[in-house]
Amino acid sequence: MAFAPTRGTLIPIGGKLSSDEILERFIGLCGGADARIAVIPTASNEPGMGAWFARAFEKLGVARARSIEFRERSDCDDADWLEELAFATGFFITGGDQLKLASILGGTPAHHLMRERFHQGVSVAGTSAGAAILSRHMIARGDEGASPRMGMVTLAGGFGFLDGVIVDQHFRERDRLGRLLTAVALIPECLGLGVDENTAAIISPDGTVDVMGAGAVTIVDASRMGLNTIHQAAPGQAITMSDVRVHLLAPGATYHLATRTAHLARTLVLDD
Amino acid sequence: MAFAPTRGTLIPIGGKLSSDEILERFIGLCGGADARIAVIPTASNEPGMGAWFARAFEKLGVARARSIEFRERSDCDDADWLEELAFATGFFITGGDQLKLASILGGTPAHHLMRERFHQGVSVAGTSAGAAILSRHMIARGDEGASPRMGMVTLAGGFGFLDGVIVDQHFRERDRLGRLLTAVALIPECLGLGVDENTAAIISPDGTVDVMGAGAVTIVDASRMGLNTIHQAAPGQAITMSDVRVHLLAPGATYHLATRTAHLARTLVLDD
Repeated sequence: MAFAPTRGTLIPIGGKLSSDEILERFIGLCGGADARIAVIPTASNEPGMGAWFARAFEKLGVARARSIEFRERSDCDDADWLEELAFATGFFITGGDQLKLASILGGTPAHHLMRERFHQGVSVAGTSAGAAILSRHMIARGDEGASPRMGMVTLAGGFGFLDGVIVDQHFRERDRLGRLLTAVALIPECLGLGVDENTAAIISPDGTVDVMGAGAVTIVDASRMGLNTIHQAAPGQAITMSDVRVHLLAPGATYHLATRTAHLARTLVLDD
Repeated sequence: MAFAPTRGTLIPIGGKLSSDEILERFIGLCGGADARIAVIPTASNEPGMGAWFARAFEKLGVARARSIEFRERSDCDDADWLEELAFATGFFITGGDQLKLASILGGTPAHHLMRERFHQGVSVAGTSAGAAILSRHMIARGDEGASPRMGMVTLAGGFGFLDGVIVDQHFRERDRLGRLLTAVALIPECLGLGVDENTAAIISPDGTVDVMGAGAVTIVDASRMGLNTIHQAAPGQAITMSDVRVHLLAPGATYHLATRTAHLARTLVLDD
């Protein structure tokens, strides 16, 4: 699927964010000192989560950061909060439960406005649940384990900022290769993108993915998959998938969604 | 989500198709006697299913109808079959298992070509599994019953001809309101569209839906949903959804996807 040039940058973060480097990169994309960040804390059950991130952004020097406290669906057409979204130059989505984000915000005026602003160039970062929600097809629930099995993943609908890619997070730390492979067996058209903790995939409007942080990004590409037995498998049964391409990308590596190829970001000049 | 004017018409049929009227409507949209129909039998485990439909189309007077026997993923870049797809003026997708369609065709050159042709104006009809596969979010598996419960539906990725709508079929006959509601709780942005057996929803490029056939079409709209507890529910547990709008549309009724409103197709002139 194509990537329109007018979109903002998307930054799925794998959870357990502890370095400022990723937030500073996000702030730079949102206008630096002039940035106005809207924090969406809906995924979290901790009441102070959104305010905590808003303070963190203000400490890092942004002009304005506010937590938009969407707690129920009826909050999601509040005029003051929609205005805050309308003037924000960046959205930050906290961790928690991505299905809570989908069930409370999905299809509401707030959701539609966020997508409109993203298509106008506003960048969006999200950590953990906030990363999962960025794609159209979303992993809502799943089991741990390296092997794909029918029924080990529950899919739902995300915010739809990212087509053709399904995001997973806490990726190596929670042994989620199996559930990401199962998701890709169910949607072979989608690339799987697994992000480790304290790590970010910086997805530019042209579909370039840069890796940043402490861990790595794992890409699962089924476009040349030969065998796929998921339609024959009973719940819990292991499935066969052949010729799945996997890329393990450390910081410094780059992936292009349009061509589905991996590169190193910089050419090393050795004989100089 | 918007409907581009250059698309073909989509015709999800609820299964157990026994009247020629729906196929004749489809043939008319594909060029009538000049129509070239490509039948996709991949969902079915019965080897003669595609040829049976191809003969049925030829008996109804089309210029050419061929069954494209995509049985494995490696079939889906066969040059002869891709040429048949490239020159077809209509695609017909048989019943069987929609997850088999997704797992074998998803992300292959055949899938990409079908979508390209659809965006060039080629119409697509599908019955049962062939109806389910038309949307981007697809119900792959599910349980019977009228009440929504966490875990009663398995979602996967369909062919993506239809955004913002999730199709179900054999709708009243198999008591599928519960699973369609569960799907909509997982993806509140999506309209649910349930099609009864021997019934079709004719979805025009402008987003007008006409109902045709023996049964009805049920629309589930969560855009004004108040409560949604799916993120709090354990597997198998009943969920709360409030303010879901439901439309029950018999033949003669029309629904507009863009405005989400139902109308009667013709104004009855009573005093004439």
